[in-house]
Amino acid sequence: MLSIRRYFSSVQRIAQIANASKPGETLQVQGWIKNVRRLKNNIFLDINDGSTSEKFQLVVPRNASTQQLASGSVISAVGRVQLAPNGHYELHADAVQCLAEGHLQDGYPFTPKQKHAPEYVREHLHLRARVDYIAAQMRIRHKAQKAIHDYMDELHFVQINTPILTTNDCEGAGEVFRVQPDSEQLLKQMARPSVPVEQSYFDQKVFLSVSGQLHLEAMSYGLGNTYTLAPAFRAENSKSPLHLAEFYMFEAELVHMEQLDALAAFIERMLKDITQRLLNSSASDLHFCQESANAGSDIAWLQLPWQRLSYDAAMAIIMEHKDKFKSAVSAADGFSKEQELFLVAHCGAPVFVIDWPTQQKPFYMKVSRSDPQRVHALDLLMPAVGELCGGSLRECDAQLLQAHPQLPRDLSWYVELRKFGGLHTGGFGMGFERYLQLVTGVKNIRDVIAFPRYPHSCKM
Amino acid sequence: MLSIRRYFSSVQRIAQIANASKPGETLQVQGWIKNVRRLKNNIFLDINDGSTSEKFQLVVPRNASTQQLASGSVISAVGRVQLAPNGHYELHADAVQCLAEGHLQDGYPFTPKQKHAPEYVREHLHLRARVDYIAAQMRIRHKAQKAIHDYMDELHFVQINTPILTTNDCEGAGEVFRVQPDSEQLLKQMARPSVPVEQSYFDQKVFLSVSGQLHLEAMSYGLGNTYTLAPAFRAENSKSPLHLAEFYMFEAELVHMEQLDALAAFIERMLKDITQRLLNSSASDLHFCQESANAGSDIAWLQLPWQRLSYDAAMAIIMEHKDKFKSAVSAADGFSKEQELFLVAHCGAPVFVIDWPTQQKPFYMKVSRSDPQRVHALDLLMPAVGELCGGSLRECDAQLLQAHPQLPRDLSWYVELRKFGGLHTGGFGMGFERYLQLVTGVKNIRDVIAFPRYPHSCKM
Repeated sequence: MLSIRRYFSSVQRIAQIANASKPGETLQVQGWIKNVRRLKNNIFLDINDGSTSEKFQLVVPRNASTQQLASGSVISAVGRVQLAPNGHYELHADAVQCLAEGHLQDGYPFTPKQKHAPEYVREHLHLRARVDYIAAQMRIRHKAQKAIHDYMDELHFVQINTPILTTNDCEGAGEVFRVQPDSEQLLKQMARPSVPVEQSYFDQKVFLSVSGQLHLEAMSYGLGNTYTLAPAFRAENSKSPLHLAEFYMFEAELVHMEQLDALAAFIERMLKDITQRLLNSSASDLHFCQESANAGSDIAWLQLPWQRLSYDAAMAIIMEHKDKFKSAVSAADGFSKEQELFLVAHCGAPVFVIDWPTQQKPFYMKVSRSDPQRVHALDLLMPAVGELCGGSLRECDAQLLQAHPQLPRDLSWYVELRKFGGLHTGGFGMGFERYLQLVTGVKNIRDVIAFPRYPHSCKM
Repeated sequence: MLSIRRYFSSVQRIAQIANASKPGETLQVQGWIKNVRRLKNNIFLDINDGSTSEKFQLVVPRNASTQQLASGSVISAVGRVQLAPNGHYELHADAVQCLAEGHLQDGYPFTPKQKHAPEYVREHLHLRARVDYIAAQMRIRHKAQKAIHDYMDELHFVQINTPILTTNDCEGAGEVFRVQPDSEQLLKQMARPSVPVEQSYFDQKVFLSVSGQLHLEAMSYGLGNTYTLAPAFRAENSKSPLHLAEFYMFEAELVHMEQLDALAAFIERMLKDITQRLLNSSASDLHFCQESANAGSDIAWLQLPWQRLSYDAAMAIIMEHKDKFKSAVSAADGFSKEQELFLVAHCGAPVFVIDWPTQQKPFYMKVSRSDPQRVHALDLLMPAVGELCGGSLRECDAQLLQAHPQLPRDLSWYVELRKFGGLHTGGFGMGFERYLQLVTGVKNIRDVIAFPRYPHSCKM
């Protein structure tokens, strides 16, 4: 035991061994046994420490002390790195220390070497990180966030922690969660005349944020370009594999932004750049997830120039092919996911649908000065997931904004931003989980987030 | 106007001019006029674009077109960089384009050149980013998060987005917010027999997270070392300058962690490293905030070795000096903030108080095998803010955990983690806003977060 302790600081993560070690070197690994193969003289153990989806083999002599090793146990071994005939590194050790027994036969839900349906894996949420494709997803999710933070920081954007608790209802959609202290006693203690007692903590109704955009705008009016990568919430009764009650939104606001095309160009450059960073950092995890999801590893869109289509041109294409769609085609409702994917296939590339009918879009979008029936808005449509980003130039004219029939009550502060030294700003929001689905090919959004929350399910 | 458009992509952020430009170079800046000084032939404008707290001067000829320029307006100017006699760069331009009028006389709350009390500034939350020390705070906050993400990524920690919505009540403190859809109609639509209708969305009571620790542990049991930097919530009726209803927690969980001293060493190394990164990226903003807060720029703790004190030794020191404290000294309650600061001063350095009485700490902390009255817990006490981090080794024995009288109901999943290939883990949580208060000297926590939420206040 003492020797292990002494070596503690030199424990090598399996993911780093191929880069950091040379054959013949002595090092220590710690991890879970994923698989055991017993041959005549040696035992071959597949070891996983959570750092990689690639297999790593530990070879130890078969004897009384190693005979008991079983899948699921946590072990520590000091040995010598060797290059196996298949070209992979492996570790040859004289002995293995078992740090904890796996006890897999006592009710562990995941049978080693067996592939389990995602629905079944999701039922055991607390143990799900031990399933290889979930662990790979979590590492990819980490690296995708890192790529976003790195890219935006290099371009001098300031990350703003937009609030989770808000008194705005940004989209006016009504599909929001309400928040109040759980303690009746606290509510009574804080009660004030003329405030309903359940609102006494904040003196008004408070919701979970559906978007950080309006808050970003307020900050951009002092700081310049800003962004946020934060949880957002929708109280929808949706079983869709593309929706969650709690999800992450990557939103950015760019100042001195006067052309929708410049905003589209920024989004295209940014998404290509962060995806390239992700390919550089996480190639084997991406490949592993795509294989697990039976998805192709086709991200040809990285090399293509992305297209632009006006809403009218896009609608004309859909109308021309309207017999092909399951859902009815209606010019009033925008596009269904089926139609979005058709447009992407039709263009042979991701496509920005621009210049939307004013009545289909929210109050904050900038109205075309040459055609008030159109706003400077864009939707980015991608393969597999359909809409990935929505964005727009923001209405910079305080009077137009004030006169908008859909301006929510209590947004006088938002109008006032424009009054004192107004700016031309534009921005976008991207569903972060949809981006992860896009790059990994995972069908169900519940499998790209650690703790999915959806109707009738909030485990742990 | 056309020439400005053509130059758009070459707009230089003021913060980069000193590093990226040479005297004589032509460049474009865009920003707000902070101050105007009119001399005989020239007008001197202080320009701010949100990128720096340092002043940047624009010099233009005094003529009919520049005569109207006033504080608060947004301008664009193309000119030549020159080195001023004071050693700073400035821009000399022939003309200035006014992009938007400031209209400061029409109700703008912040008088140029006047210093306003933080309480007053906070009342105008939507315009607060235009106040220099708030903008500086936001940039520091961004860079501090970037430093944490960079450091943890370099050490191969995986960032986990621990959930905001949870059915756990981690601390069992009862000071939690409850969440439900705002729509009565949705609740009725989703109702199921035997579930109270207000709980029908998730089939149970759902709270806002007070900590991501337990969720991190579940993930570490598959991924190894993990961390989170995420919002947390407390429904306390506190007016304290150290508490918010919505705040950010930086939490990490380390696997194969068997010694409390190793955990303390990790925390010390990490905090020194991210603070050094912050000093490298944000020296002038830090200095500006410290000056605005009338705080010293004394972070001598960066160079000192931090101390360790057992709880018993710390309590003995407090008892020895008990006449010095405003609040009564009681061995049952831990330390008041006054006492924490006294211990830091007494040690002449930040200090880890370790080995706490079992009864003062939560159920998940590892009980000393040699003295069951003690847990392997630490509090890190710092100058100015008192407790900055709390951490512990986690109880790894499923049976001890199961038998703990304070184990919350419904945490069978947490106990089960230990059953199948258990790990020795340890971790800590740090209030991110307290860290920002520590490095900037800002007294009130409401001024280090963009949108503070506290009793009777949830603006925007």
